[in-house]
Amino acid sequence: MSKKVTKIGVLTSGGDSPGMNAAIRAVVRTAIYHGIDVFGVSRGYNGMIEDEIEQMNSRSVANIIQRGGTILKTARSKEFFTEEGRKKAYENLRKRGIDGLVVIGGNGSFTGAYKLSQEFGIPCVGLPATIDKDLYGTDFTIGFDTAVNTAVSCIDRIRDTADAHDRLFIVEVMGRHAGYIALHSGIATGAENILIPEDETSLDEVIASLSEKEKRKKLVNLVVVAEGHSSGGANGVAEILKSHLPNLDTRVTILGHIQRGGSPTCLDRLIASRMGYHAVESLIEGRHDVMIGIFQNTINFTPIEVAIREKQRMSDDWMRIVKILAS
Amino acid sequence: MSKKVTKIGVLTSGGDSPGMNAAIRAVVRTAIYHGIDVFGVSRGYNGMIEDEIEQMNSRSVANIIQRGGTILKTARSKEFFTEEGRKKAYENLRKRGIDGLVVIGGNGSFTGAYKLSQEFGIPCVGLPATIDKDLYGTDFTIGFDTAVNTAVSCIDRIRDTADAHDRLFIVEVMGRHAGYIALHSGIATGAENILIPEDETSLDEVIASLSEKEKRKKLVNLVVVAEGHSSGGANGVAEILKSHLPNLDTRVTILGHIQRGGSPTCLDRLIASRMGYHAVESLIEGRHDVMIGIFQNTINFTPIEVAIREKQRMSDDWMRIVKILAS
Amino acid sequence: MSKKVTKIGVLTSGGDSPGMNAAIRAVVRTAIYHGIDVFGVSRGYNGMIEDEIEQMNSRSVANIIQRGGTILKTARSKEFFTEEGRKKAYENLRKRGIDGLVVIGGNGSFTGAYKLSQEFGIPCVGLPATIDKDLYGTDFTIGFDTAVNTAVSCIDRIRDTADAHDRLFIVEVMGRHAGYIALHSGIATGAENILIPEDETSLDEVIASLSEKEKRKKLVNLVVVAEGHSSGGANGVAEILKSHLPNLDTRVTILGHIQRGGSPTCLDRLIASRMGYHAVESLIEGRHDVMIGIFQNTINFTPIEVAIREKQRMSDDWMRIVKILAS
Amino acid sequence: MSKKVTKIGVLTSGGDSPGMNAAIRAVVRTAIYHGIDVFGVSRGYNGMIEDEIEQMNSRSVANIIQRGGTILKTARSKEFFTEEGRKKAYENLRKRGIDGLVVIGGNGSFTGAYKLSQEFGIPCVGLPATIDKDLYGTDFTIGFDTAVNTAVSCIDRIRDTADAHDRLFIVEVMGRHAGYIALHSGIATGAENILIPEDETSLDEVIASLSEKEKRKKLVNLVVVAEGHSSGGANGVAEILKSHLPNLDTRVTILGHIQRGGSPTCLDRLIASRMGYHAVESLIEGRHDVMIGIFQNTINFTPIEVAIREKQRMSDDWMRIVKILAS
Repeated sequence: MSKKVTKIGVLTSGGDSPGMNAAIRAVVRTAIYHGIDVFGVSRGYNGMIEDEIEQMNSRSVANIIQRGGTILKTARSKEFFTEEGRKKAYENLRKRGIDGLVVIGGNGSFTGAYKLSQEFGIPCVGLPATIDKDLYGTDFTIGFDTAVNTAVSCIDRIRDTADAHDRLFIVEVMGRHAGYIALHSGIATGAENILIPEDETSLDEVIASLSEKEKRKKLVNLVVVAEGHSSGGANGVAEILKSHLPNLDTRVTILGHIQRGGSPTCLDRLIASRMGYHAVESLIEGRHDVMIGIFQNTINFTPIEVAIREKQRMSDDWMRIVKILAS
Repeated sequence: MSKKVTKIGVLTSGGDSPGMNAAIRAVVRTAIYHGIDVFGVSRGYNGMIEDEIEQMNSRSVANIIQRGGTILKTARSKEFFTEEGRKKAYENLRKRGIDGLVVIGGNGSFTGAYKLSQEFGIPCVGLPATIDKDLYGTDFTIGFDTAVNTAVSCIDRIRDTADAHDRLFIVEVMGRHAGYIALHSGIATGAENILIPEDETSLDEVIASLSEKEKRKKLVNLVVVAEGHSSGGANGVAEILKSHLPNLDTRVTILGHIQRGGSPTCLDRLIASRMGYHAVESLIEGRHDVMIGIFQNTINFTPIEVAIREKQRMSDDWMRIVKILAS
Repeated sequence: MSKKVTKIGVLTSGGDSPGMNAAIRAVVRTAIYHGIDVFGVSRGYNGMIEDEIEQMNSRSVANIIQRGGTILKTARSKEFFTEEGRKKAYENLRKRGIDGLVVIGGNGSFTGAYKLSQEFGIPCVGLPATIDKDLYGTDFTIGFDTAVNTAVSCIDRIRDTADAHDRLFIVEVMGRHAGYIALHSGIATGAENILIPEDETSLDEVIASLSEKEKRKKLVNLVVVAEGHSSGGANGVAEILKSHLPNLDTRVTILGHIQRGGSPTCLDRLIASRMGYHAVESLIEGRHDVMIGIFQNTINFTPIEVAIREKQRMSDDWMRIVKILAS
Repeated sequence: MSKKVTKIGVLTSGGDSPGMNAAIRAVVRTAIYHGIDVFGVSRGYNGMIEDEIEQMNSRSVANIIQRGGTILKTARSKEFFTEEGRKKAYENLRKRGIDGLVVIGGNGSFTGAYKLSQEFGIPCVGLPATIDKDLYGTDFTIGFDTAVNTAVSCIDRIRDTADAHDRLFIVEVMGRHAGYIALHSGIATGAENILIPEDETSLDEVIASLSEKEKRKKLVNLVVVAEGHSSGGANGVAEILKSHLPNLDTRVTILGHIQRGGSPTCLDRLIASRMGYHAVESLIEGRHDVMIGIFQNTINFTPIEVAIREKQRMSDDWMRIVKILAS
């Protein structure tokens, strides 16, 4: 059995995602409820190295559940990839007696946590926070629902202007390796085509479908592309389409960073709260080096080294539905 | 084995919920894809009785996925509770050769479908559409996610003015028998107390907690109440609280029907699309008299008489989390 | 010529309105730019009496321009209506050397400022912040645009559900003495009837028009009522309409306090910024005991005793337009 | 005095802007109220040439006041620039007896109207609809308020992620020749710098200010750029800034076409309704070849050839306020 936890640290790391604040709040308040001291580490592992660590109380997290971004700030740390960097970071935890760590972030952040645990025996728990959704062992990641709703409401707007002008719009959403934002926002806005990294459909099919639509005078069309699609994102797709379909009035919009911000949706606040609560409970119960997930409506614990290695698989069902519904 | 389906009807019935249009669209387009004729029945069972039934095509459902309400309109039908009413309704289906029905609605709507099936052998499939979420056999109901996000964004606004004035706000959300909107929106907005029909906590506990907060000068408080709570909704609660805590500056807001409308969230559009697709597939495969659900991320079929009888149970986990996080 | 201003106070008072934070920010930063010390007074005149006054700097107002509510909190003060209360308040200004005051609020707040100026010679400037819009000497008041857009988006939602059910909805918006929110939100949502305190149309006309619509089967109707309408707000109107039109399916929704909160619109942030800037400039130039307004796109100065006494008149044009457009 | 108007046409032309539907609705209903037949011309002058003209009634414009885009569709017509094109267009009006035209659009659209009037004696009235706001003779243009609020809410989101990462964001908003969207959205989001076509501040000043901020560790900064700024929009600005300030973590976001769509704000619906009403009244009163504006809260008529030639001037006040408030 593990020793009792008395002091924990919490940090956000990697790309920010809406709901991180709700997770911080849940971690802090659950810790305090159990009489555990809780310390906020600023700017991810950077702040751990540079000793930007401060004790938090219940008030520190008042009125943040509805805010985008992260009050602890976040960063990607190069120094933490060096042994020396991690040593410095560990020292700053040790001198405060911090004997547990909650890391809110994605894959890269969990890798850092795993190293801290392996090298210095700091018990860690990971909370999956990424707008990309592709983490293993969880049906939900903190931030995805907000990001995809932001994308949907932007694409709804673009549909208005596409309709008014009989135009083809190619909209790029976030997702370097994962197509979940593209898939979900594309279905939800009735996109005629959806291009994702996981499904390397050649553009031939898209060209054929648009060309057929052009013949029957359906000129308003919407293609949603994940930034990581092999043809080079929306601009790459547009170039190819224009060369094959020169008569279509084509426009490109890249949604970009607006997908990261904004007040989190109800779902993101809820899962962040629930996961944050269970992160602390898990440390107390001596279950660590795991990522907390919600899988089939139940709290699920994935060994952190598995969470780092594996990816969430996309259901095949969806691609079939897209083709049938977007006629 | 059942006969091949050739003509189906689709209707929305009972209280409207955001995403019904996305469901209609999916039913219509999947049917057409399979070469099945599809007929829209207006105003629920009322329109079936009064023969307001029209064939739909792919264009009929263009550009509706993002719209609240229902293009087929909805109603609660008294006449359909009589045998004579149902007979008339059936005749209108029969004369068109309709041999399958997709009913989008809640409990009451499914009861109607069940009777049609029992009495006249019309194969029916139900799609769970209710903002209350309490249907059995599905983790999601069409409309809940939108309704609860509307509630959250309203309560966020109320929090602004509560903070500015150091006030106690009692906010009533929808839910006559089910507390899901109250529970989820209350957690997501950091409500200090949540009162739901499923958990008949006496108000004593709320009074004690508010009284203790008054002593330590925490004057801004938020109580979220489901309309069906035994103390008589927000007005009932306010009366009791005022009599015990006369010094608190207390205000009541009843969110009401704004929770029903609005453009559906991404999630509601997705589940409506997925369920609508599977409703038609299910009729084709000869699986009927079932409600389509999504349970643990998988399509789930619940016999419609079970769906009518049972309720979704609320997880206990949540009430504990509420108390710890809202300190 | 007046003495040079060196230290000013700023407060928000009365009902809160979105954009107050933007105004505070502009006052603080303009003062600092001119080398003037600036003090925030909490909870309106209450905080002035109880000496809740703190110096602010540029950082104090960072990241607040987009927030609803007011970081200085607001209140209605009874004690300030007494000479003794005002004396105490003045002492707290005097001991800090505060020689100028910016009061952000409505009529009641300006009355307080006027008394302070008359009795103790404190130069005051008023900024019109009220969601009711009815202040004299300005085309815009801080908060109105946000409140009316909130009302519009709620009523749009209600329209969805009204359409789905063929219902008559009676929606009550804020406005005890002023009908601007009702008028603007009613026109913008295509309301069939609009009932405001300024135009005591008897309900006979509304009944006649609804009755005529019932005959031609136009069953979806929307009546927007200001809370201060003589028939007793939405509930009063509903009772009367139901007694005359018992067959209509009628629902009431009272929007309430959600109209006060929320992130301010662009317009409210802009006018608040512009007015806040000119409030400080005006004190510096020795022009005080005025309310800052924007009238015909130009900064306008109304003597504060005139601002207290007079009301903005509603243009007749609109009521005629309502009748023609909502057919 | 002019002849009595009996049949009018209405069209939307050029770039679409939110509120065009509200304007169409007002034109149609006011015409019908006065017993005038009203015809909708599709796709701007293109549809006039190709005879896509249909009579509208009160129902044609039901439930559109809240919709973005334009139900009449819009386009830029090359053929209409030729005499032959205009001749064909005129023939299609003449054969229906259309003796009045309401053109909803911007500068280019008014030029077309002017030619129709000059060459064929068709009385025209223009309604200013452009998200750019820079038209002469009116304080408001249909669509600007919605576009700028969309920009504001996107930039608010970007601010969240900029804060979380201590980044410099360069956001490009629409405006090829006019900086109003950049100016208003920049002030409303507290942008540190605003770059507009009307004010060719060299980037030296921006570089100096960012460099000074870098020294005092203020790393979160926001620069809002109009697409028409001489340095080549956001990408051009980013390149220059990065070469001078290589240590800043810089990101670019181009908001693009999402600024055109979306449900119009209350203000845009109101001014569109008011202007549409007065457009028809003006034709009836024999006042034509004018653009309807709202200037200093009053309906204003600008001769259409003046409206084409002149531009709205930007107030100097604002640029000064920007510098003081964004410290």
